[in-house]
Amino acid sequence: MPWDELKPREFAAFEKDLDGISRQTMQDHYKLYEGYAKKANECRRILNEFDYAQIEGNQVYSPLRAVSVDYTFALLGYKNHDLYFGHLGGDGGDPHGRFAELVDREFNGVNKWLDALKKAASAARGWVIVGYDLNDGSLFNYLMDSQNLWAVYNMVPVLALDVYEHAYVRDFGATPDGRKQYVEAFLRNVNWDHVNRQLAQAEAAKQGADATGLQEPAVAGA
Amino acid sequence: MPWDELKPREFAAFEKDLDGISRQTMQDHYKLYEGYAKKANECRRILNEFDYAQIEGNQVYSPLRAVSVDYTFALLGYKNHDLYFGHLGGDGGDPHGRFAELVDREFNGVNKWLDALKKAASAARGWVIVGYDLNDGSLFNYLMDSQNLWAVYNMVPVLALDVYEHAYVRDFGATPDGRKQYVEAFLRNVNWDHVNRQLAQAEAAKQGADATGLQEPAVAGA
Amino acid sequence: MPWDELKPREFAAFEKDLDGISRQTMQDHYKLYEGYAKKANECRRILNEFDYAQIEGNQVYSPLRAVSVDYTFALLGYKNHDLYFGHLGGDGGDPHGRFAELVDREFNGVNKWLDALKKAASAARGWVIVGYDLNDGSLFNYLMDSQNLWAVYNMVPVLALDVYEHAYVRDFGATPDGRKQYVEAFLRNVNWDHVNRQLAQAEAAKQGADATGLQEPAVAGA
Amino acid sequence: MPWDELKPREFAAFEKDLDGISRQTMQDHYKLYEGYAKKANECRRILNEFDYAQIEGNQVYSPLRAVSVDYTFALLGYKNHDLYFGHLGGDGGDPHGRFAELVDREFNGVNKWLDALKKAASAARGWVIVGYDLNDGSLFNYLMDSQNLWAVYNMVPVLALDVYEHAYVRDFGATPDGRKQYVEAFLRNVNWDHVNRQLAQAEAAKQGADATGLQEPAVAGA
Repeated sequence: MPWDELKPREFAAFEKDLDGISRQTMQDHYKLYEGYAKKANECRRILNEFDYAQIEGNQVYSPLRAVSVDYTFALLGYKNHDLYFGHLGGDGGDPHGRFAELVDREFNGVNKWLDALKKAASAARGWVIVGYDLNDGSLFNYLMDSQNLWAVYNMVPVLALDVYEHAYVRDFGATPDGRKQYVEAFLRNVNWDHVNRQLAQAEAAKQGADATGLQEPAVAGA
Repeated sequence: MPWDELKPREFAAFEKDLDGISRQTMQDHYKLYEGYAKKANECRRILNEFDYAQIEGNQVYSPLRAVSVDYTFALLGYKNHDLYFGHLGGDGGDPHGRFAELVDREFNGVNKWLDALKKAASAARGWVIVGYDLNDGSLFNYLMDSQNLWAVYNMVPVLALDVYEHAYVRDFGATPDGRKQYVEAFLRNVNWDHVNRQLAQAEAAKQGADATGLQEPAVAGA
Repeated sequence: MPWDELKPREFAAFEKDLDGISRQTMQDHYKLYEGYAKKANECRRILNEFDYAQIEGNQVYSPLRAVSVDYTFALLGYKNHDLYFGHLGGDGGDPHGRFAELVDREFNGVNKWLDALKKAASAARGWVIVGYDLNDGSLFNYLMDSQNLWAVYNMVPVLALDVYEHAYVRDFGATPDGRKQYVEAFLRNVNWDHVNRQLAQAEAAKQGADATGLQEPAVAGA
Repeated sequence: MPWDELKPREFAAFEKDLDGISRQTMQDHYKLYEGYAKKANECRRILNEFDYAQIEGNQVYSPLRAVSVDYTFALLGYKNHDLYFGHLGGDGGDPHGRFAELVDREFNGVNKWLDALKKAASAARGWVIVGYDLNDGSLFNYLMDSQNLWAVYNMVPVLALDVYEHAYVRDFGATPDGRKQYVEAFLRNVNWDHVNRQLAQAEAAKQGADATGLQEPAVAGA
């Protein structure tokens, strides 16, 4: 747990006017991101300072479980927003490059993936994360109901779409219809090159792991 | 989503007598693992058959959100157990190799990591997953309260310790003390080479991703 | 399960200008309330139409569990908002009547309860529900992280304070400070008589139950 | 929050041999119940000692939110088991009395309710609580995924069926089939008079509340 200190970064998206997403929304949003970084750092400090020989481990209530659990809320709150802000500031348009190639193949067409993304964005309570699975290289639109509810491991996030109300209420209204308009605005501002850079890292991670030849056999005892 | 069919594998742990963990417990446990594979496959089939242009996306209740969310319970139910069964059948003893090296460094001693693992095992409601973070290469004992509660992404699991009651009630009793005895038994049966193989893949994945040179800069807009 | 159809009601709060909470926020908020009623009714219909002799009961994924679980999200989404809208439209000021009497006694002063309410409002992710316990008649500021996360039974809600972002982002901004300003605005618009009416029903419910003389004895087997 | 200290009670079920549920299972189970009482009391003490004027209210991580949330796990862990142990020690058989009358009417037959209960018991991850709604007097088999996940307020529990693995693994095995056998055993040992006593209190609570004449009108502003 020799964690670095998480630091809020600067993003190109804050240097320009986005199409439909206001500067006020972005500025408020950035404060939440700063809050997640601060709290993640605080949780890391507490987790590093525990004396694990002495501390109580209790599954009903104990400071150990409370900090360990809510640390993941803080950590993903930071990571989710770090990815999301990185996407914004682009020109939208159709997905291109390797990402388009993969979703075209996996969803039988880029537009069908877009349909699935939009429906996921209406069905989630917090985020849609398009995730790349390190076991089989598949992509899936994961629904997340909060910063950390229903994340999975062995997954590298490629695209993060915030559907918490803070992302759209000021600009589009706190209704299902407002959320839909916001998702369209997100797609007008997304930088697909940034998404492709995430995907390139995800595929390289899988290739790195596969090259070890240490993947589990079909029959483990063999 | 061109997912392969998940298939329950065979494991060396089922070919021998474990120390303290009964064959009956293992056999019942395997049935749960088969159930997770079956349900994950069923969810994948449903998710593949949805017509995303037509389907309702609703965050209160909709089949799309229900299947998407509980799919992660099924998927991690499969992956968690696949890893756990792969660990068992070893000779226990002290952690060695690269894994020992890393936890020694990160927790200021292998025994301090063991303390932390045991306290985490008492404080979790489902699993402890020792996870390797693909961003910074740190290890952490993640508490999970069910198959999918409080997992994080960008994390490769290295060691999976089941603390659901099905893992220990028959052999050690449904009490906090019974759970502690079970954790000791788990450590007597763990195959540290298997843990090291997971870690080798995790580190190779990080190296693969890092080698792309596409990691986020400190200032994203730069 | 011979449920009535839930119907969105009309509220006095929508007939006037609130202090600090805009009509636009209230109108958008009402649409969410209508959505919860509609979905709760839909879930009730599905639950009534299941053939329980034939249906699959599966804890990993099954339509039965999905509808049963998300029904509580819809139902409390309706009930939470029904109570909240009923509170608004008042003149705020200090709590009075029986409610003031109880929180004065239980929290060692009305202002200390107000402190506790405000801190709870910053610490919750969805709602603060001041609940009256039917077992012992105590009041507690329950934190709820969504429409249905961490509710308890045998509790009658007396005051419901929505801290979902939809309640305050448009008028006060999506920041912790914006939420604090919103909570002050809520307190300027609350109708304490309405809160007292809830409390009167809660106390009457406890008295009704107690009068049966059927409460559990200290020793159940006696 | 002038809470009484929760005290584990004695139950008739522990004075006799149950049919199919072993004394060892019951003894281990009682220790969990004692643990919930102890932790609920500890959380109450912490919650009472906070200085609410000074304490941090933070929704990402703060001791206030951690204790407030996990207190409900402890509290319902106590209440769930208190009810469950109270049911046991009876002679099973067909439901009778007012409870039978209500489920017969609401589920179109007592056997159809039993079908629904059994399917719910397979579909839940923690408890099935047959709850009486104080708003409309309806009964529903609520699925709970842990001690406190998906409880609802304004509900009085009438029957509590524990399907955590600690309730059945030792006697019936940690499989879906083992759980089914355990549910049959529960029904052979249930004391329907005890269930009817809970229902009598629930109905009296509703009558008490209704007699105030303070229920919400169809049009709140009227």
